[in-house]
Amino acid sequence: MANKEIPYKIYLEESEMPRQWYNVRADMKNKPAPLLNPATLQPMTFEELRPVFCDELVKQELNDTDAYIDIPEEIRKFYKMYRPSPLVRAYCLEEKLQTPAKIYYKFEGNNTSGSHKLNSAIAQAYYAKQQGLKGVTTETGAGQWGTALSMACSYFGLDCQVYMVKVSYEQKPFRREVMRTYGAKVTPSPSEFTEVGRKILMEHPGTSGSLGCAISEAVEAATKQEGYRYVLGSVLSQVLLHQTIIGLETKTALDKYDIVPDIIIGCAGGGSNLGGLISPFVGEVLRGEKDYKFIAVEPASCPSLTRGKYVYDFCDTGKVCPLAKMYTLGSGFIPSANHAGGLRYHGMSSILSQLYDDGYIEARSVEQTAVFEAAEQFARVEGILPAPESSHAIRVAIDEAMKCKETGEEKTIVFGLTGTGYFDMVAYEKFHNGEMKDYIPTDADLQAGFDGIPRFPGNNI
Amino acid sequence: MANKEIPYKIYLEESEMPRQWYNVRADMKNKPAPLLNPATLQPMTFEELRPVFCDELVKQELNDTDAYIDIPEEIRKFYKMYRPSPLVRAYCLEEKLQTPAKIYYKFEGNNTSGSHKLNSAIAQAYYAKQQGLKGVTTETGAGQWGTALSMACSYFGLDCQVYMVKVSYEQKPFRREVMRTYGAKVTPSPSEFTEVGRKILMEHPGTSGSLGCAISEAVEAATKQEGYRYVLGSVLSQVLLHQTIIGLETKTALDKYDIVPDIIIGCAGGGSNLGGLISPFVGEVLRGEKDYKFIAVEPASCPSLTRGKYVYDFCDTGKVCPLAKMYTLGSGFIPSANHAGGLRYHGMSSILSQLYDDGYIEARSVEQTAVFEAAEQFARVEGILPAPESSHAIRVAIDEAMKCKETGEEKTIVFGLTGTGYFDMVAYEKFHNGEMKDYIPTDADLQAGFDGIPRFPGNNI
Repeated sequence: MANKEIPYKIYLEESEMPRQWYNVRADMKNKPAPLLNPATLQPMTFEELRPVFCDELVKQELNDTDAYIDIPEEIRKFYKMYRPSPLVRAYCLEEKLQTPAKIYYKFEGNNTSGSHKLNSAIAQAYYAKQQGLKGVTTETGAGQWGTALSMACSYFGLDCQVYMVKVSYEQKPFRREVMRTYGAKVTPSPSEFTEVGRKILMEHPGTSGSLGCAISEAVEAATKQEGYRYVLGSVLSQVLLHQTIIGLETKTALDKYDIVPDIIIGCAGGGSNLGGLISPFVGEVLRGEKDYKFIAVEPASCPSLTRGKYVYDFCDTGKVCPLAKMYTLGSGFIPSANHAGGLRYHGMSSILSQLYDDGYIEARSVEQTAVFEAAEQFARVEGILPAPESSHAIRVAIDEAMKCKETGEEKTIVFGLTGTGYFDMVAYEKFHNGEMKDYIPTDADLQAGFDGIPRFPGNNI
Repeated sequence: MANKEIPYKIYLEESEMPRQWYNVRADMKNKPAPLLNPATLQPMTFEELRPVFCDELVKQELNDTDAYIDIPEEIRKFYKMYRPSPLVRAYCLEEKLQTPAKIYYKFEGNNTSGSHKLNSAIAQAYYAKQQGLKGVTTETGAGQWGTALSMACSYFGLDCQVYMVKVSYEQKPFRREVMRTYGAKVTPSPSEFTEVGRKILMEHPGTSGSLGCAISEAVEAATKQEGYRYVLGSVLSQVLLHQTIIGLETKTALDKYDIVPDIIIGCAGGGSNLGGLISPFVGEVLRGEKDYKFIAVEPASCPSLTRGKYVYDFCDTGKVCPLAKMYTLGSGFIPSANHAGGLRYHGMSSILSQLYDDGYIEARSVEQTAVFEAAEQFARVEGILPAPESSHAIRVAIDEAMKCKETGEEKTIVFGLTGTGYFDMVAYEKFHNGEMKDYIPTDADLQAGFDGIPRFPGNNI
């Protein structure tokens, strides 16, 4: 079996697709810190969370004991429309790099949302439908999550209201149009439709919006409309749970060919892709069965793991959400305007934050010109135009493969290729024209992100 | 076997991928008419064609006797990067339509060119490389072919010069940027770089260009540079040959599950997708082994099969190319400016023209608002945002499935989903805003396309 020829693309059979998501919290000795009610500083209860999230999703959010959670049949049916996603052996990239390393990537871009986001969007839409809701609200930055949710809601006949960061709304009209194709209502944020939006507009009249601000508006819109709930595309533990479909498929595909990875790499914004990819492998490490090296890759311009603090912080600008303990740059942090890709959230999934704090995960930050160099190199030999976010993982995968070339080690590298860059051509154009700049925040820039955050118990900022 | 459960997506194993292309001309009793030299009106010879096309491709163009042609190993290697493409059972669409029909589509959009065009691009680039050429020239309209060729040339280290119809160059900067990612040089056409371009610019100073004009420029550029040849993305018999990979994979996948199609549908512009999809099935009909219904779908605004004439015509505006006998609207025909999608070429592959004339293929023309309605309906249930071109086939597939609903027939419908619509959001936006109009050319409009075409022997126009 070990000598079985590895095809370019490993596709699982439908019958091999996972029937359960894996909840890594069940195997963590140090559980992620609970969400806190900012008024009482006590852990959020089911009753406190259910006005915002669907009941079943609240249960998943609070569940840190069940290792496996069944994937409902309706969701599995939808998954079959675009999954299993291929695990690709990057033969052409290996040849180009002349490395003895074996490189694999799990490609999540073969669906119209253009990314892995659809894996959780369909789950969240399903539970909303099951609860008899009319619709859901959400925010979107670059637009991948908004597109994914639009697709999922359209499938289940749910109303979908998307608050899109104003600068993206204006610069990415095509993303907006894809969402409209799926029947979503897209509103530029901040807007006049919410109290928090009006307040932000009054305080910062010319603002082009931010993710934290759009979250506040979407949450308010959900709680003020009968039959609506709020849904989120990353950070939350429920989202990481749904995204484990990525890692579970990857593991099944690797096992099928007796491939044992040495290094597993993913880009990290809010953490949903990385968490989904590595969870099943982290579980093996936590249970003492295996050992792998995990690398989280983040932009140097938004370095929450490598330069943030592990404290309780607000998840949104308007401070309407619960507090989460996470590696954070402070909820007031906004990455430099010349940062091109996504991965611009100030915080990080509480699961990944705890695993990182416990030393299970490494983190690296990379600058964007180096990221686009890797993206272009990859596109030219592997035939896929990668999203800027995904290209962070490509950068480090290539770096690790080049180390193998120096040392002669035949390491097996697996990375997550989360999506495609079709809607990111403005950034590619800047790169081609030599107009892309790197920017590393100063310590003072980072400190500014924490201004206005109260000193919660245990926080040291 | 007949009761075997059909998965949502049928993927072939690498070992099941075709090793030979199928040359349907070998099985045609009435061969397609040969290309003629416009000066002598004699069939073009190998020696006359080789200054324009690579030697091996000229051989393929002229070969109407060998039924199977080996796919070189290097091309098969590249195919493995993005093929086999899935044959998808449209379970969700069937359910939505409540039809007893069984609908399948062969999806060619899962590669960065966004379409089937890559299947021939990589073959043409390979033969150019093999011949020791420096590079190739071509034209592109909507940009799918240009993107595909850029990818192929980048893989083999060939220079790639693309003449892009000026209106597309300006309206689709993102397509241009994808080509630049792959290192192609993209020039808006008509340009000052060629004699024919300068002539057209002098005669029509404000022109926004046309495909026929860009072809003329690309051919001139190829013949005037040492070590260059011209390549084309459709119409030619060599292109249809390479595209038979689509139909051969489709047939293998169907056979694997004992599925026998009743109707096979494809959109038709120059004919490469339709020809590639149906060739192996047409072969069975020609050999008297089977019977299928084939439907070519074309835009009502560019109806070469349904309203054109079967005559010898120029392939390009500048009249630098050989004459081809084909269903044509006249080389002077340019579709109305409000026509949104591709499929705007004035002529049709000589292979398909002959098959159509012999009654093996039906043709239908559809209006673009009906096409976009089908596109949106499909996107919402099948999760893929289709290209406008491909949506012509979707329209007729849905129409046929609805007929089955009326009659209760459980027909099996297979259609070609050639690509994705990520770069066509301007058209989708028009559709969403109710600004899309239909346009059917008058008989006088059509007659105008033939003005200036000499009366070649046998032509009756």
